[in-house]
Amino acid sequence: MLERIRLENLHNKVTTAEEAAKIIKDGMVIGSSGFTKAGDSKAVLAALAERGKNENLKITLMTGASLGHGTDGKLAEANVIKKRMPFQVDPILRNKINAGDILFIDQHLSESAELLHAKNLQQLDVAVIEAAYIERDGSIVPTTSVGNSVTFAAMAKKVIIEINTQVPEDVYGIHDIYQAEDYPFRNVIPIVAPWNKIGRRSIPVDPEKIEAIVFTDIKDSPADIAKPDHKTIAIANHLLHFFENEVALGRLTDRLLPIQAGIGKVANAVLTGFKDSNFYDLTMFSEVLQDSTFDLIDAGKLSFASASSITVSKECYDRVFDNLQKYREKIVLRPQNISNTPGLIRRLGIIAINTAIEFDIYGNVNSTHISGTKIMNGIGGSGDFARNAYLSIFVTQAASKENKISHVLPMVSHTDHTEHDVDILVTDVGLADLRGLAPRERAQKIIDNCVHPDYKEELQSYFDRACERGGHTPHLLEEAFSWHLRLAEKGIMKK
Amino acid sequence: MLERIRLENLHNKVTTAEEAAKIIKDGMVIGSSGFTKAGDSKAVLAALAERGKNENLKITLMTGASLGHGTDGKLAEANVIKKRMPFQVDPILRNKINAGDILFIDQHLSESAELLHAKNLQQLDVAVIEAAYIERDGSIVPTTSVGNSVTFAAMAKKVIIEINTQVPEDVYGIHDIYQAEDYPFRNVIPIVAPWNKIGRRSIPVDPEKIEAIVFTDIKDSPADIAKPDHKTIAIANHLLHFFENEVALGRLTDRLLPIQAGIGKVANAVLTGFKDSNFYDLTMFSEVLQDSTFDLIDAGKLSFASASSITVSKECYDRVFDNLQKYREKIVLRPQNISNTPGLIRRLGIIAINTAIEFDIYGNVNSTHISGTKIMNGIGGSGDFARNAYLSIFVTQAASKENKISHVLPMVSHTDHTEHDVDILVTDVGLADLRGLAPRERAQKIIDNCVHPDYKEELQSYFDRACERGGHTPHLLEEAFSWHLRLAEKGIMKK
Repeated sequence: MLERIRLENLHNKVTTAEEAAKIIKDGMVIGSSGFTKAGDSKAVLAALAERGKNENLKITLMTGASLGHGTDGKLAEANVIKKRMPFQVDPILRNKINAGDILFIDQHLSESAELLHAKNLQQLDVAVIEAAYIERDGSIVPTTSVGNSVTFAAMAKKVIIEINTQVPEDVYGIHDIYQAEDYPFRNVIPIVAPWNKIGRRSIPVDPEKIEAIVFTDIKDSPADIAKPDHKTIAIANHLLHFFENEVALGRLTDRLLPIQAGIGKVANAVLTGFKDSNFYDLTMFSEVLQDSTFDLIDAGKLSFASASSITVSKECYDRVFDNLQKYREKIVLRPQNISNTPGLIRRLGIIAINTAIEFDIYGNVNSTHISGTKIMNGIGGSGDFARNAYLSIFVTQAASKENKISHVLPMVSHTDHTEHDVDILVTDVGLADLRGLAPRERAQKIIDNCVHPDYKEELQSYFDRACERGGHTPHLLEEAFSWHLRLAEKGIMKK
Repeated sequence: MLERIRLENLHNKVTTAEEAAKIIKDGMVIGSSGFTKAGDSKAVLAALAERGKNENLKITLMTGASLGHGTDGKLAEANVIKKRMPFQVDPILRNKINAGDILFIDQHLSESAELLHAKNLQQLDVAVIEAAYIERDGSIVPTTSVGNSVTFAAMAKKVIIEINTQVPEDVYGIHDIYQAEDYPFRNVIPIVAPWNKIGRRSIPVDPEKIEAIVFTDIKDSPADIAKPDHKTIAIANHLLHFFENEVALGRLTDRLLPIQAGIGKVANAVLTGFKDSNFYDLTMFSEVLQDSTFDLIDAGKLSFASASSITVSKECYDRVFDNLQKYREKIVLRPQNISNTPGLIRRLGIIAINTAIEFDIYGNVNSTHISGTKIMNGIGGSGDFARNAYLSIFVTQAASKENKISHVLPMVSHTDHTEHDVDILVTDVGLADLRGLAPRERAQKIIDNCVHPDYKEELQSYFDRACERGGHTPHLLEEAFSWHLRLAEKGIMKK
């Protein structure tokens, strides 16, 4: 194992997770690797949660995005987290956030590193970073994600490294480690296509800061891959038909433009749909490489994919690492403030496909909150992409829970993406192309194309009565949330 | 006058505004120069409005931003506008938009040109562009704004030019005319500092497309410069104090970072405040150069200002053009999809100061709509800047109309900027620094620092009662708009 620490004078830093966790003290700010469950801390944060059971210990925890292995839940249960950012998906942590017991900052994934560099956030005490191995210069070869680790390694006072022996050392070379200069001396980020590699292959760190090295042999938590169902297939078909039509109209070629797809069933169904399509030479410029990414590569449809992590099922994890030689020329993992940076998204002309919790008749999108108050996961990268994309697409089912809940509403109860940033909305019912439409036109198109039939009449009635009262964006403020309120009262949005 | 048409075979295109306006037919899409009243069409669109009085004529009108000379109002009154984008400030037009008689697309100012290039909008028939003169190659030297004119000239089938003899020909050289490549072949925009000039000095156009040339001698509509009052001075002082503190903490130097400031009283007061400060060598990377910009240059405080237009008072207009030699090395006018492009705003690290109509306890901002339905002007460039800035600041008065209206509310009635994109909120009461704060912390900070005393108790009560019910972003949906509803019913937001 020690051959994975190629800088020999670090050999004496090897210790247990419990010992390493002791470096973390009450009140500290910790930055941990981990992006959509990939490349997270498997040992040190878990040991910290154990310690927290018997000790008064409160930290601020920053990550790339979500952690795997229930680590966020364990930390939350042990009351170790005071403040958490920029993303999470853990049910235990979520409940504590919604109860007001843990403070959560729901942050654009591109921005956490920016805020740290600009000293607009409290500075880091300790970084915990998963590595495949440590280079002879002390630099860190990351594993299945890059996330914010470059910034954490640069800015933390002390660094703990978890070397994961499950990840083969020949992962070296799939990462493109680059950081922009600090203000006011920032230069151009010279990426003009998804496959451009502009940086180093390992994360620079001052070896003096490395205080502990822990070995682990635990794989990433596998992604839950839900099989496409009739709704997700309907959404995927609407979208594929739309893309075909864009090609027919000469607005896109059948290579499309680089695709970003959020995590989840629908994105998976859409990407899977490309397998049997006529599109070819597709590329991705996204946050996460999912099972469907590798399926599309295998099918010869996808020629390159750029992201910040590989988050896949157990089967796919083994497939990727057993065939790394085949995939390594077709993928790259970047820091999330590069994969998600506004300028690159605009420059490359991204087709962004993200999931909504609900949207309203004007095309405002809620990605995060149930009935305006309770957070689910967080905005993630959806804002980074939607605001700067060539095409900003949001998808959701028209209705759920035996149609007791409509996901198309008079007014969203929480706004993450404003109508200015939403081009295309898709439900299983249909697709609304909102480009070039004013608010009243958007509303009629959404009612005509997207809403579930059970809710169509009432939504039309809301819009018609709002129009009678006038306005650029007609609304009846006294009634705008009546569907949410009815749901809270009677368990159903319908009258 | 003909010496202003240096391509001699265009001399025979000179005609009257009335004749030129006949090129515009019913149903056409027109792109006109004009950005915050600067460099707009003074003759052809006015002639079109005249014609519209006696003719059934409906057009879609795109501009840079707002037009001067009441032109939007004249066109609206003559029922010539079917659809209008991306911005307007005209009271007659606004009323027709709010009545539902004219369709308006409220668009990020950086995006209209992008949408045209990507064929995501209906294509242009005719461009109307104000020029100082026409070069020997037929290219257009613009006047006091660039706006979307580069795109309009490139994409319209026919071009009408208004040569404005009020603008001296030595305006040549203050414009930096650059356009990014179309997808998927877009390259880096090589600007790393506000003063970088990367383009040509005139707008390329195929001379074959120039169908008419009209001479005018009308100056731009002057900007209304409201004197700072006690509220705007209070806001400016809070902000200046904040900047001084940022310098003291080592987060900024006393050169700050490039400043963007929206139009209006408050921005003017803030910029004026810099005159007597210790800051030096300031720069702007903004949309509009206002009176205060030139005052700061004269005071030796501002070393360079980049924008898309010069929109100033009558006095300042004369001052600028009488002293162009002095100012020309310190200013540049760019296309608005360069001045406002997300990547440059992030790269340069802009301090963005924009005006809100209202904001809520979590820091969501409404920049556009009165009580959620009636539009005022439009989002303009506030979104382009706020979303990508180093610091995103919004300012407004705490209360207005003899305190019958509070501008700090339980929930905004329309969301243009989400809490993710808002760092600092300022009213005359005080400043809330929201960086690194979770929603509940943001709420308490805003209630403590920004709300008018008349509304403080009730806002605290709303927040406290919402917290009892729980949630990451506590709200009482049934009460969230009660202040707006009370205003509509009783003319006052107070209980």
